[in-house]
Amino acid sequence: MNDKPLRSRFSDLVERLQNDICSEIEDWDEGGTFRTDEWAREEGGGGVTRIRTGGDLIEKGGVNRSTVYGRLPEPVRQQFEVEEGVFQASGLSIVLHPESPMIPTVHANIRYFELYRDEVGGTRRDAWFGGGIDLTPYYLWEEDVISFHRTLKEVCDRYGSDLYSRFKQQCDDYFYLDHRKEARGVGGIFYDYVRPDDDRSSADWFQFSRDVGEAFLPCYRPIVRRRRDEPWQEKHRRFQERRRGRYVEFNLVYDRGTRFGLKTEGRTESVLMSMPPRVRWEYDVDPDPGSREEELLQVLKSPRDWLDAKS
Amino acid sequence: MNDKPLRSRFSDLVERLQNDICSEIEDWDEGGTFRTDEWAREEGGGGVTRIRTGGDLIEKGGVNRSTVYGRLPEPVRQQFEVEEGVFQASGLSIVLHPESPMIPTVHANIRYFELYRDEVGGTRRDAWFGGGIDLTPYYLWEEDVISFHRTLKEVCDRYGSDLYSRFKQQCDDYFYLDHRKEARGVGGIFYDYVRPDDDRSSADWFQFSRDVGEAFLPCYRPIVRRRRDEPWQEKHRRFQERRRGRYVEFNLVYDRGTRFGLKTEGRTESVLMSMPPRVRWEYDVDPDPGSREEELLQVLKSPRDWLDAKS
Repeated sequence: MNDKPLRSRFSDLVERLQNDICSEIEDWDEGGTFRTDEWAREEGGGGVTRIRTGGDLIEKGGVNRSTVYGRLPEPVRQQFEVEEGVFQASGLSIVLHPESPMIPTVHANIRYFELYRDEVGGTRRDAWFGGGIDLTPYYLWEEDVISFHRTLKEVCDRYGSDLYSRFKQQCDDYFYLDHRKEARGVGGIFYDYVRPDDDRSSADWFQFSRDVGEAFLPCYRPIVRRRRDEPWQEKHRRFQERRRGRYVEFNLVYDRGTRFGLKTEGRTESVLMSMPPRVRWEYDVDPDPGSREEELLQVLKSPRDWLDAKS
Repeated sequence: MNDKPLRSRFSDLVERLQNDICSEIEDWDEGGTFRTDEWAREEGGGGVTRIRTGGDLIEKGGVNRSTVYGRLPEPVRQQFEVEEGVFQASGLSIVLHPESPMIPTVHANIRYFELYRDEVGGTRRDAWFGGGIDLTPYYLWEEDVISFHRTLKEVCDRYGSDLYSRFKQQCDDYFYLDHRKEARGVGGIFYDYVRPDDDRSSADWFQFSRDVGEAFLPCYRPIVRRRRDEPWQEKHRRFQERRRGRYVEFNLVYDRGTRFGLKTEGRTESVLMSMPPRVRWEYDVDPDPGSREEELLQVLKSPRDWLDAKS
């Protein structure tokens, strides 16, 4: 048993996960380096931003953690529709943009939020978990998407047979660009404002979050292995750079975490580490009928049930 | 005298300006072509999007006009805090992204909005003008910024000695990235929700809008002439592409027109024609002290009064 309060255990967890994940990325990505920035937040807490560039695999990647606390900032109070109060929040955020258009971009996040009346660790008013992992391929291999979803389903199934389908649906709903009528990618799982329920305690959701964090490498590692030697040409790269434009559109127009971070004067460079390194906007380009580019777009226009059809 | 209602005259105006401006751009930009798309809006009206690519001067540019009408869409009603009703809106929007980092990006817009109780041309509830022209340089020549502002001041002065300083201030306030604590560029003029006042009738504001539209070429032409043969290297281009990232951030996070267009299901490709063609996000790059890149950033951090100091 661990006697520490949940918020401290969560903060320890994101620190351990950041180290483990960065350490394996160092094995994958020859020639790259992590730049590590520790930052402090004036009102309380801080974080460690680790940005990967220069390697043969990852064009730009970020593995960030933060634990921040203090009085609730005004935009947060408005968003949660709560009175004045004090909060502590910890989170881990990962976004990897590989150079090769044959390897998908991946995003993962776990977070835990506690809200108090007067002081951190005092009378608790509310607490919740959030997170998820999702995949944004440029070229589609069904095998990759299915193995990715299957790994996530295995994690979910440990905590309830309903969770995967619920969180898979929430992922499809969340990562959707309404102005493009397209999903950002092929989904994964997404959960937010998760609290103890009839079947699961806070300790269970803590473990679930840990398992989601620990599933990041098993989700993504096999895809990297299978696709890293896949050849590609300039035209594939160009398609990838255009699709990265959609990634930017999603994050700046819709993503709650990004818009929240920008509004609450978080550390802007850490918030925007998710931006892809090189991006294109070309006017009104449609993929050729029958092309692999069109195949991807079809899937993004009508999200599939990856495990129903093929598992 | 012209017996047509103001809304039709404005619609005619944006059509004429689009033609005149595109025609001069064709003279400037060797080897480029305009792709022209006429589009219709299901609920009423439509527009003509003209996108320039392939030339030696403009990497990507758009000169768009639209006249749309119909019942007020829900997000518009919310934004303007009005009841159900009918509207007509016409506008011209220009964004030119030159290839050379030595030539600034330029943006111009004029728009006119009428709101009715029951039908277009029926009982009018409200009407207003909006617009402006602003400049986003990557490398700074004070001469260019001053001539740009001086041309705009000449237009404003015809309609009131207070207008330039008012609209210059509104431009600095509007084109500001709060999360970067930076202006998007070196400003210009910006006005919105402008209605008849003690000194100026609707007809005056119509003429003012026309003069702003007609000032686009005199504002930008001299800068293009002076800077088009300025040599540049890869490092300048890289700085330009990073700065274009800020342009994207502004348009997707803050710009009312863009967010409005995306929310009201405007024609997405026309709304996002303002996106730069090639963009970079690099993590936490600071310019060298004393460099020209730093010089620009200093100006963006504290907007100047271009005509006070130097004219």
